[in-house]
Amino acid sequence: MSDNRNLTRTHSSVAAVQRELMLGQRGAVIWLTGLSGSGKSTLAYALERRLTKMGRLTFALDGDNVRMGLCKDLGFTPEDRNENIRRIGEVAALFAEAGVLVLTSFISPYSQDRATARATSKGSFVEVYLDVSVEVCERRDPKGLYKKARAGEIANFTGISAPYEEPAEPEIRVNTEELNVEECVDKIVAYLDTKGYFNVESLKKQAEEAQA
Amino acid sequence: MSDNRNLTRTHSSVAAVQRELMLGQRGAVIWLTGLSGSGKSTLAYALERRLTKMGRLTFALDGDNVRMGLCKDLGFTPEDRNENIRRIGEVAALFAEAGVLVLTSFISPYSQDRATARATSKGSFVEVYLDVSVEVCERRDPKGLYKKARAGEIANFTGISAPYEEPAEPEIRVNTEELNVEECVDKIVAYLDTKGYFNVESLKKQAEEAQA
Repeated sequence: MSDNRNLTRTHSSVAAVQRELMLGQRGAVIWLTGLSGSGKSTLAYALERRLTKMGRLTFALDGDNVRMGLCKDLGFTPEDRNENIRRIGEVAALFAEAGVLVLTSFISPYSQDRATARATSKGSFVEVYLDVSVEVCERRDPKGLYKKARAGEIANFTGISAPYEEPAEPEIRVNTEELNVEECVDKIVAYLDTKGYFNVESLKKQAEEAQA
Repeated sequence: MSDNRNLTRTHSSVAAVQRELMLGQRGAVIWLTGLSGSGKSTLAYALERRLTKMGRLTFALDGDNVRMGLCKDLGFTPEDRNENIRRIGEVAALFAEAGVLVLTSFISPYSQDRATARATSKGSFVEVYLDVSVEVCERRDPKGLYKKARAGEIANFTGISAPYEEPAEPEIRVNTEELNVEECVDKIVAYLDTKGYFNVESLKKQAEEAQA
């Protein structure tokens, strides 16, 4: 459909690494995936609070600010869900390029869609799988959605009438039944720390090497 | 098309103002509009360089990182152009909410589309009109597009075979024929300064009032 032959590819004058040096952090896409009721939004907000306390710049993408804005033209058919996740992957990658630790909270049930988001964000993708059984999620049912799905009021409901494809090799796996929310946050922050996302020294070295 | 009745509206725990305090700046959508060849990309990059030197966090959205990513499913029909600008407006508003000074460089020829982008970014929209005649732009023709358009090789080319609706009341008007690029940058930076986008004291006051 697209005819992009007349676009000229240029590069921004402000390299991503300069922004990262300014912020003292590397941008990342922290991609939370799991069933409805697995605790994605709760975890995203707790993580956002913690990272902000640590002086880190974060931003959360979720159904609230995406489904009612960027993706308001989309419904819940499989095609529209794919397109929804595709756009979120693209926007998250832009935020990561801007140096932001961007947290996405979407069921994102299809492996292929998550693989596309991973490829789009080129090396800064941290997949966090909220590994909780559908039985537990249905027992919690914080928004009453499972009840509606069981009553046939919601079609294509993940875990009930639509599949959830479990991540095979997520960077982080958390079970929100076994761990409380702060313990889940600990696990993610420790991962980011270990991988150098807060390491300004290694960023400086990168910048020097780029100039050499 | 959209069925969002089962979405629950929640609010992020990290208020935009907290992020802005951390960054020492207010987020803004700096929306450059003008004909092809009016100098949008050149101005955006010069502005990005200047703001970065000033220690400000910026990010540029342009054809390069949007048309080949988020909007790669769209072509150049009027409907697709509307949708392209709609998505850019939504993404730019998210960046501004994250505290970033986001620069957008798109022809964005229709007043209605720009009005929608303005409404989406709620009070942080700075429309910059690159006011240069089509004759001057065609003489410059940096990418050879006017030549192709005149030869009929590009349909719906703004200024030749498709309209450009001039902004009636842009926040800033720059004529890149009369001013050099650094003078244009000066004008935009002065505007942002005057409007308090770099004023951390007023941000602190806002945060205190919000807590009171």
